Amino acid sequence: MLNTKMQELGENRSVIRDLFEYGKKRKAEIGEDKVFDFSLGNPCVPAPDPVNETIYDLLDSQDDVYLHGYTSAQGDLLTRRTIAADLNRRFGTSFQADNLYMTCGAAASLKLSLTALIVPDAGDEVLAFAPFFPEYRVFAETAGAAFRIVPTDPETFQIRIPELEKAVGRNTKAILINSPNNPSGVVYPEAVIRDLSAFLAEKEKEYGHPIYLIADEPYRELVYHSGTVVPYLPNYYPDTLVCYSYSKSLSLPGERIGYILVPDEAADSKALYAAICGAGRALGYVCAPSLMQHVIAACDGMVSDLEAYRVNRDLLYQSLVSFGYTCVHPDGAFYLFVKAMEPDASAFCERAKKHELLLVPADSFGAPGYVRIAYCVTEEQIRNSLPAFRALAEEYGKG
Amino acid sequence: MLNTKMQELGENRSVIRDLFEYGKKRKAEIGEDKVFDFSLGNPCVPAPDPVNETIYDLLDSQDDVYLHGYTSAQGDLLTRRTIAADLNRRFGTSFQADNLYMTCGAAASLKLSLTALIVPDAGDEVLAFAPFFPEYRVFAETAGAAFRIVPTDPETFQIRIPELEKAVGRNTKAILINSPNNPSGVVYPEAVIRDLSAFLAEKEKEYGHPIYLIADEPYRELVYHSGTVVPYLPNYYPDTLVCYSYSKSLSLPGERIGYILVPDEAADSKALYAAICGAGRALGYVCAPSLMQHVIAACDGMVSDLEAYRVNRDLLYQSLVSFGYTCVHPDGAFYLFVKAMEPDASAFCERAKKHELLLVPADSFGAPGYVRIAYCVTEEQIRNSLPAFRALAEEYGKG
Repeated sequence: MLNTKMQELGENRSVIRDLFEYGKKRKAEIGEDKVFDFSLGNPCVPAPDPVNETIYDLLDSQDDVYLHGYTSAQGDLLTRRTIAADLNRRFGTSFQADNLYMTCGAAASLKLSLTALIVPDAGDEVLAFAPFFPEYRVFAETAGAAFRIVPTDPETFQIRIPELEKAVGRNTKAILINSPNNPSGVVYPEAVIRDLSAFLAEKEKEYGHPIYLIADEPYRELVYHSGTVVPYLPNYYPDTLVCYSYSKSLSLPGERIGYILVPDEAADSKALYAAICGAGRALGYVCAPSLMQHVIAACDGMVSDLEAYRVNRDLLYQSLVSFGYTCVHPDGAFYLFVKAMEPDASAFCERAKKHELLLVPADSFGAPGYVRIAYCVTEEQIRNSLPAFRALAEEYGKG
Repeated sequence: MLNTKMQELGENRSVIRDLFEYGKKRKAEIGEDKVFDFSLGNPCVPAPDPVNETIYDLLDSQDDVYLHGYTSAQGDLLTRRTIAADLNRRFGTSFQADNLYMTCGAAASLKLSLTALIVPDAGDEVLAFAPFFPEYRVFAETAGAAFRIVPTDPETFQIRIPELEKAVGRNTKAILINSPNNPSGVVYPEAVIRDLSAFLAEKEKEYGHPIYLIADEPYRELVYHSGTVVPYLPNYYPDTLVCYSYSKSLSLPGERIGYILVPDEAADSKALYAAICGAGRALGYVCAPSLMQHVIAACDGMVSDLEAYRVNRDLLYQSLVSFGYTCVHPDGAFYLFVKAMEPDASAFCERAKKHELLLVPADSFGAPGYVRIAYCVTEEQIRNSLPAFRALAEEYGKG
């Protein structure tokens, strides 16, 4: 009688959320510091000081009714102007406020973009490069598309055009791309983006219809080497939507604030923007949280202290490698992507749990045999967890 | 190639949002105080002082990472416990935190409830009593249901069971009910709720399946006479979901904060709650805004200063009646529902626009020939608008 698809999605929580809830319970049982929860991408670094300072300022200086009132469905005009100006300055683009639609974070950005693009029951396909954030599948399938995984290089997790060629077809409506990547930490370099853009432009011609890239960019600012460039996709491929979130860059994951960028250069730009507005309306979004929109107008372009993450990455990466773990060296985001020490990553994670290590098996990320370790935790947690990681490796005869 | 249904929803904005945008432009042209915008239910009364005081306190005393971090998808436990305790105190219920799911406001509450209940392409029907908030239709239809309007008494807008009997059928999955009502301001009294509950219980038996009442309750606290009781529906009819929002009671419409209540007594309660969680996941909601959830934990049960609305209601109602307008006396919410002075309400609203009066034609509310006037504005705006209302009436030979 109910919508069993929704019931199933609710009962089988995402493996990440499941571990997060388990971790909360376990900490209540044996103590906060005894459980090493690496499950959730919940930043440990506080928001930059100007975020809270801006909230104080807004409360002190602005009319309450304005501050907490509805904005336009598209978002506050000043906020969107500020973001457009910042993007133009950084990427040499010429966006305007009307290219932006404010959202309740990246998940909403992705869901609204897919809902706007996908025609249910029309055979539309959405592609994603492995490994990928598992909710991509949920968002695409519940919007009415088939979801297809594009394999990547098994050692480096870089995009390989021949693999994409096998997966792309006439029904390909959109391709999700996420760099720096959750869960691998990999950044797709400019050469790859150029090849990808050229390939897709050719396919668009061949099929006579647009294939949209949906760039999921919550980790754009989280790179740890000044030489690492994350190419800005609209500058390479016109049919790009950018789904952004301030969850990671400003450490505001619970506040649900982000945007969708629809460049004028994208095919059917105006109609697509309207469809995104329609999707927001149909899915009950009304507007993005108003106080946080006003915060973004003042704090857009700022970034939380990345140094803490870099320290964590180096400490954890070097330690794990020294204990005998195999993992890709991550250029960005805040995840280590580690080979499980037995073929079944879930079984490996269950053994890790006995050491109070909460790691996420990556089967649902399209990368069986791997686990994701979110290192957006305190350095202390990492230090305290190292004996457990070592003991786990020793159980498998390593270290 | 795009989802044309979404494009259409985006291009044909709700008539309310359209007027709101027109009003903003018009004010920029001729001055804030020259345009009498009665379009949007954007409260003019500020949030109660403790709301902003709580935000200061939270910023001063709480860890940033906790404050702005993800909560459980269901919502912060303390927040949900606080709400359950408040409901239990007020309505003699025995809810617990797990009966509550925090949402991004009433629109999200409604959309998630409908998505959880409706099986797409199964012929499910959703009913609403006229007049109704027009987005009900959008939420229901895009969730895959047929939407049916149940007429009410043409003079009082009260529910009439014989009209409901004509509309209810085997495919009726849910009935939306909104009291105090947007747009009529009418409260459905206890006798009506008893009759409704008895009728639906009988129909459930006849059809052998539940018919859910979805109580949309953003205006519950906005009643202007101490004798006006708004019956709490779960106490009358077990298969009730309550969709609540703090937009009006705490004057926080832009912040998007509310909840869904699923009583244990509702049919398939556990499965339904799971389906709501699944819908939240599928539609990209992740969690309700975290800072505002923590605010609710401190401010739940408080109400903005209602006296201002009561003053507005009395002033506007008495003035309009003296000018020759016909309208229902509203017991709650902050809308006057007024008969247009010609059969075509849209044409009437266009003439009102020439007097800089922005009124919403109620065709899309299921009540052609009426207009909605949102009096959640300053008393000054009402006083200044009275000559325009009088002049408009005079054009129709009234007053």
